[in-house]
Amino acid sequence: MFLRRNWYVAALASELSERPIARTILGEHVAMYRNSSGQIVAVADTCPHRGYPLSLGTVVGDVLVCGYHGFTFDCGGICVAVPGQDRIPSRLSVRAYSLVEQGCWVWIWMGHGEADLSKLPATPWMTDTDNWSVVSGVAKIDAAFGLLVDNLLDLSHETFLHNGSIGTPEVATTPIEVEVDDESRVVNVYRHMANVECPPFYSDTTGLKGKVDRWQDIEYFPPGFYKLNSRIAPVGEPPLPDGSDAHAFHMKIFYGLTPSTETSVYDFWALSRDFCVGDDAVDRFLEKMQVAVVQEDVDALNILQQRINEGQELTEVSVKIDRGGLVARHMLAQLGEHEVTRLH
Amino acid sequence: MFLRRNWYVAALASELSERPIARTILGEHVAMYRNSSGQIVAVADTCPHRGYPLSLGTVVGDVLVCGYHGFTFDCGGICVAVPGQDRIPSRLSVRAYSLVEQGCWVWIWMGHGEADLSKLPATPWMTDTDNWSVVSGVAKIDAAFGLLVDNLLDLSHETFLHNGSIGTPEVATTPIEVEVDDESRVVNVYRHMANVECPPFYSDTTGLKGKVDRWQDIEYFPPGFYKLNSRIAPVGEPPLPDGSDAHAFHMKIFYGLTPSTETSVYDFWALSRDFCVGDDAVDRFLEKMQVAVVQEDVDALNILQQRINEGQELTEVSVKIDRGGLVARHMLAQLGEHEVTRLH
Amino acid sequence: MFLRRNWYVAALASELSERPIARTILGEHVAMYRNSSGQIVAVADTCPHRGYPLSLGTVVGDVLVCGYHGFTFDCGGICVAVPGQDRIPSRLSVRAYSLVEQGCWVWIWMGHGEADLSKLPATPWMTDTDNWSVVSGVAKIDAAFGLLVDNLLDLSHETFLHNGSIGTPEVATTPIEVEVDDESRVVNVYRHMANVECPPFYSDTTGLKGKVDRWQDIEYFPPGFYKLNSRIAPVGEPPLPDGSDAHAFHMKIFYGLTPSTETSVYDFWALSRDFCVGDDAVDRFLEKMQVAVVQEDVDALNILQQRINEGQELTEVSVKIDRGGLVARHMLAQLGEHEVTRLH
Repeated sequence: MFLRRNWYVAALASELSERPIARTILGEHVAMYRNSSGQIVAVADTCPHRGYPLSLGTVVGDVLVCGYHGFTFDCGGICVAVPGQDRIPSRLSVRAYSLVEQGCWVWIWMGHGEADLSKLPATPWMTDTDNWSVVSGVAKIDAAFGLLVDNLLDLSHETFLHNGSIGTPEVATTPIEVEVDDESRVVNVYRHMANVECPPFYSDTTGLKGKVDRWQDIEYFPPGFYKLNSRIAPVGEPPLPDGSDAHAFHMKIFYGLTPSTETSVYDFWALSRDFCVGDDAVDRFLEKMQVAVVQEDVDALNILQQRINEGQELTEVSVKIDRGGLVARHMLAQLGEHEVTRLH
Repeated sequence: MFLRRNWYVAALASELSERPIARTILGEHVAMYRNSSGQIVAVADTCPHRGYPLSLGTVVGDVLVCGYHGFTFDCGGICVAVPGQDRIPSRLSVRAYSLVEQGCWVWIWMGHGEADLSKLPATPWMTDTDNWSVVSGVAKIDAAFGLLVDNLLDLSHETFLHNGSIGTPEVATTPIEVEVDDESRVVNVYRHMANVECPPFYSDTTGLKGKVDRWQDIEYFPPGFYKLNSRIAPVGEPPLPDGSDAHAFHMKIFYGLTPSTETSVYDFWALSRDFCVGDDAVDRFLEKMQVAVVQEDVDALNILQQRINEGQELTEVSVKIDRGGLVARHMLAQLGEHEVTRLH
Repeated sequence: MFLRRNWYVAALASELSERPIARTILGEHVAMYRNSSGQIVAVADTCPHRGYPLSLGTVVGDVLVCGYHGFTFDCGGICVAVPGQDRIPSRLSVRAYSLVEQGCWVWIWMGHGEADLSKLPATPWMTDTDNWSVVSGVAKIDAAFGLLVDNLLDLSHETFLHNGSIGTPEVATTPIEVEVDDESRVVNVYRHMANVECPPFYSDTTGLKGKVDRWQDIEYFPPGFYKLNSRIAPVGEPPLPDGSDAHAFHMKIFYGLTPSTETSVYDFWALSRDFCVGDDAVDRFLEKMQVAVVQEDVDALNILQQRINEGQELTEVSVKIDRGGLVARHMLAQLGEHEVTRLH
């Protein structure tokens, strides 16, 4: 079961143009495009006539023309033209989805009924380009959503799976602290490492040599939004009581976790940093590093899913590092019960 | 369920040689070859010994030798040699199928019992090479037979799916007329377009510039044979009352619709034209165009079948352009009931 | 059902190094490696923490570190380290398997409980390198174990499937003799060919020109070990009554038949010869020939399995050449009953 009454990342803003794209989100086929007025549009990706994907059609001005027989739909999914006749049968409209563009990400509301804007995650670090530089991307993982949640909530895997880029021995050995805010439904996982090795991902961009203090503060907003507040600073230079933190380098590592089918998930990512702002070379370096990191996750999760697909019995033994993931699973289960209750 | 008591196109004549080919027709594995006497042969493509495909064997004179253990079968499917012994067990024969070669197509009778030659479609335009030039080909579509019937019975899709070759705006906007002959079991769909654009497929071969009169008269003989009588003529030059039609260019566009499995179909095609007869350059041009057109259909139907395979609920809304396809479905259903009745 | 209480070939000795390999044997995922002490190790290829394959981990000295979160296992499968904590939960160990290295092959005991060394096949021809030269290899076949047994027990297929290397007309036409030793559970199939063609596999290595006497004496030790005693000799030079056979060339063609899943099997092979001992060029020639022969079997059996996967009804007609295979099937069925009885 999917948690429908939520916002999910549906596309990178850069992916939407007058050439439609197709995504399967929460098991639903969605066609998305930007019309000639610049408006972003999402409609069900299935022509009601004979089922052809509308994403294979053509955007003509502000309407989308099906590529098989020419049935034509406006931004609201209303059928506005049928070949060979003037009368348009009433059953021919398709569902339209609410989209919101915020910086490099486009969010979609997957619930029925009106979109709840109060639930839309805030991402000012993606739009305040005077103070933050952003790179972004997306990968498709052939693994269940839950495997990606497990992965992101336990960063001790960085030491082993990502040891050439962001993983150092201290990530795995440093204990975590987990906090849950049941009211605002946020899972926090803190890992503060003092006087530790600085991995290439940060040393090559911050210029910090030798040991650093490194903080990884996760905020997970189930189901679909994850923010890792990363702080890299010279050893022994904590933030001041007033919150200022001039010696440190900050990066927000965002993930949009968007279930595609029961066994696949989109892994949207974005990196916002408050250093080397506007430096294209740093953009390219981080983008290349992050694409490699994400691919390591993709490969690992694909393998886990393949094992599940084979019918392998899943026995798990959990230890302390798993507390964040276990708490997240619990909150997702609660949200599921909540959604079911709401439907009845 | 397949409609077995019918002739289907099984191969292009050019495909049959002493090197056997394999086709799955109506769910049955069939091996076909031309023996050293030039006779065309079709037998069940499964050796009764251990199940190896006979199509992987070797034609030696007039017999087919299995490539695994050498069991040998004559043109009638009778086992005539067994390795390591003289006695041939009686259960070792395989089914032989009736084949008829007519011009560029080879037809197979898939019914049990004797082949009914009265049901074999006539295709004189494929053999009268003094007056008609022919090009032909075949594509495999990973989609159910019914999706190909839908496709061919509603040519309004030419405007959208084949707009670079045969589709013009007028195809989709011109109303059709549908006639059904329940006696001879033919579905006719007429679309007569007056004073319309001539697409490259015809303008580049007929030399007609500017507007033309264009007729598309479909005759569908369910289940497996489809003939599109295409007429291109200067504007305002109808056929004379005596049937003569000297100003016009005629093409017969044939399709052999041969179900392979429940979810795949062979799309045999042939184009016979009464102009530029014997002109190789026109042959090559039409062949290249038609291969591209067929590939556009293949891609579209494969996608529709993928959606069905995913378990997508198929809701359809039909409009006027669909009348030909709906009538064809109805006649196919009747033929199915007829075949079932006949069996009981 | 698999016959677990047996030794199977699990790897070529040359495949095991400090870089682990993964095999699925009798449906079980197994990770194998050679540790820094040179010891060969096999453990269940699934980390008990979150199910990641241990074969993707890293051998560090004598332990294997999981590539996802760093859980660490010794040669006996005991978990010896967990990230982020000192206490090691007791349920974290994985199954270890008994391995035995004998020449070019590594054997694994797949039964539960202690390995029964009395059941380990003897292969002195792989280790007596003063008198025998050996080449070896392995192929994976996407076909059920039983199809490979059928294949190897009936060598008449050499004439048709392997006619460019080891097959000659006389293999298929020469009758076989079959003997079964129910006590020692061996199936023997003898084929003695007198004054016959010498195929390239032997003529190019022995230097024998013209006709030869050729013996193929199969010993099959169900389920997993097969030995073909091949004897090539000048015509009319049988072994002497004292067993000496100085004029003949001998080759032992070994197969290790190791079920992977219900529908796949590893086809390990090794060729030990008592002629041209130490001649690298002959090694390379035989290796190349045998790889091609095995590939012909792989292709044929893959096709048979594809037919079965399609749901094709398997009807068989057996003749004299099939007696060896039928006897082998019978003995395998008996072993299966025996294993089931033993479990109850």
